Amino acid sequence: MSKNLQVLLASRPTGGVTESHFQLVERDIPEPQPGEILVRNHWLSLDPYMRGRMSASKSYAASVEIGDVMVGGTVGEVIESKHVRFKTGDFVAGGLGWQLYALSNGEGLAKVDPNLVPLSTYLGVVGMPGATAWTGLMEICQPQAGDTVVVSAASGAVGGVVGQLAKMQGCRAVGIAGGKAKCEYAVKELGYDACIDYKAGRLYEELKQACPGGIDCYFENVGGPTMDTVFRLLNPFSRVALCGLISDYNLEDPYGVKMIRSILVNRVKMQGFIVNDRMDIYQKAIRKMAGLVSSGQLKYRESVAEGLQNAPTAFIGLLAGRNFGKQLVKLV
Amino acid sequence: MSKNLQVLLASRPTGGVTESHFQLVERDIPEPQPGEILVRNHWLSLDPYMRGRMSASKSYAASVEIGDVMVGGTVGEVIESKHVRFKTGDFVAGGLGWQLYALSNGEGLAKVDPNLVPLSTYLGVVGMPGATAWTGLMEICQPQAGDTVVVSAASGAVGGVVGQLAKMQGCRAVGIAGGKAKCEYAVKELGYDACIDYKAGRLYEELKQACPGGIDCYFENVGGPTMDTVFRLLNPFSRVALCGLISDYNLEDPYGVKMIRSILVNRVKMQGFIVNDRMDIYQKAIRKMAGLVSSGQLKYRESVAEGLQNAPTAFIGLLAGRNFGKQLVKLV
Repeated sequence: MSKNLQVLLASRPTGGVTESHFQLVERDIPEPQPGEILVRNHWLSLDPYMRGRMSASKSYAASVEIGDVMVGGTVGEVIESKHVRFKTGDFVAGGLGWQLYALSNGEGLAKVDPNLVPLSTYLGVVGMPGATAWTGLMEICQPQAGDTVVVSAASGAVGGVVGQLAKMQGCRAVGIAGGKAKCEYAVKELGYDACIDYKAGRLYEELKQACPGGIDCYFENVGGPTMDTVFRLLNPFSRVALCGLISDYNLEDPYGVKMIRSILVNRVKMQGFIVNDRMDIYQKAIRKMAGLVSSGQLKYRESVAEGLQNAPTAFIGLLAGRNFGKQLVKLV
Repeated sequence: MSKNLQVLLASRPTGGVTESHFQLVERDIPEPQPGEILVRNHWLSLDPYMRGRMSASKSYAASVEIGDVMVGGTVGEVIESKHVRFKTGDFVAGGLGWQLYALSNGEGLAKVDPNLVPLSTYLGVVGMPGATAWTGLMEICQPQAGDTVVVSAASGAVGGVVGQLAKMQGCRAVGIAGGKAKCEYAVKELGYDACIDYKAGRLYEELKQACPGGIDCYFENVGGPTMDTVFRLLNPFSRVALCGLISDYNLEDPYGVKMIRSILVNRVKMQGFIVNDRMDIYQKAIRKMAGLVSSGQLKYRESVAEGLQNAPTAFIGLLAGRNFGKQLVKLV
């Protein structure tokens, strides 16, 4: 009989993450007890928030303990059920972690339909990243037709959705991404009006040119110097949805943001948010996304690592921006 | 007959403000034309926002041009009227600038009652600073009974009101101020539960001790390292009313704020605001303040410079925190 594979947190990074912070182990496949199900995971999601869980310091949620299985979103198939709500062959999305097999009492698991949209999208555009995009844009930025919406990490799992939703709202969508290929994809595939390659070194000048009416909404995924540059172009009464600060996550000494004055002078509202705080909006957003994906109105792109053993490398790449679209690990 | 005195902007500071940036001039007292009044200013208000008006760079409002009279809030007496709405002997509050006499067509002037509260308070607790305190606390922080409210520049014209209003709301009020005397005043006179002297060099430790339940609201007047320190203690879903950044105003290279991560992780709402944006709230706030001052429930303190010629020195002192309470210039 086959075995379970798991990736454990081996040690806590203080700066950059390396493979040595993870440990791949082989375990027996567990047996479900009454009230439990056994799930064979098909896809594992890799997301920037996981970097916070690797640290001991306070973040949204509790840290992963050393020696524990890394946390992570998954979709998989129920292969054995001793639970009234699930039967063998059901597909479930939830957070079963970096492993091939997992037991669950069903808490936090949602049944998903692999015939409605591709199974992997429940971890991306029809999952947490999609709901994150919706919540930050619609609830915090609240863009109106004609507004200019700037999105950092514009081609990523979250940013890619933000840009498309902004266009549906009648806004001008301007992306910021790393590299020419991502920017071309943002404009040609996702429909951004413009996308600036920050690696080309002329972010301020090019952003200013791409936003002739200034910036009304900023959906922030990266922080650091990008944040400072965008802040210089904020309009009075603009909104900043603070979704992520990926450029800081591996830094022991975070970047110091100098343009706080723009928040004051322009009477900006900047708000941090986490999608899980508003499960009512989450559910609504997921339904919308599923409809938009199945009708072909919402595009997405996936970077797929093959096999659990490649998850650490893919995660390290994600923190460095080497992914292109939603980063997934294929487990079957 | 006596002459008018005016303080003009002589040149633009690039870093710290010095007396050389101002010029005191003597002019004839102007004659009101039909539709105009001549006002003899009694009090001039000095406020941190004036630093922004001295620079050419974009701020809330247009810069003062070199050679123009410095802008500023005033209260004074109508000594000649060719305007239907005003008569000789009326007292008026408005923005007639750094000068002894001024013409006005009445725009932006409000009649005030010197018998209700002392005339000078229309520039302080019953004026723009009082309305600023009300707007930031009530509209942005929205504190609830039991919340911990932290106020920087706690004994100042704005901060002193914020702390007292927070106590009236049933909150724990914790101040931050420069020096032992200001902190003692904040606690003993204004009713703060605690006040930390940031100059003593142990702000984080002392603030942590004074806020055992963390910080729910932060009314920010100063920015810089104080902001970074307070950000470390913000609670989930806390609010930051960004009112001022006085520690940055004289810096060519602003301080870099490192703790943006706290805004994200704690889902904080930070909002910049300017009292003039919401004149409906302004008027309501002023009426509340007048009532609270005349009934003795709201305390305030004034630093008074004697004579217009001392306005520049007093303003430079204000930017360095050498004032104690509302900084005024007595003109009669």
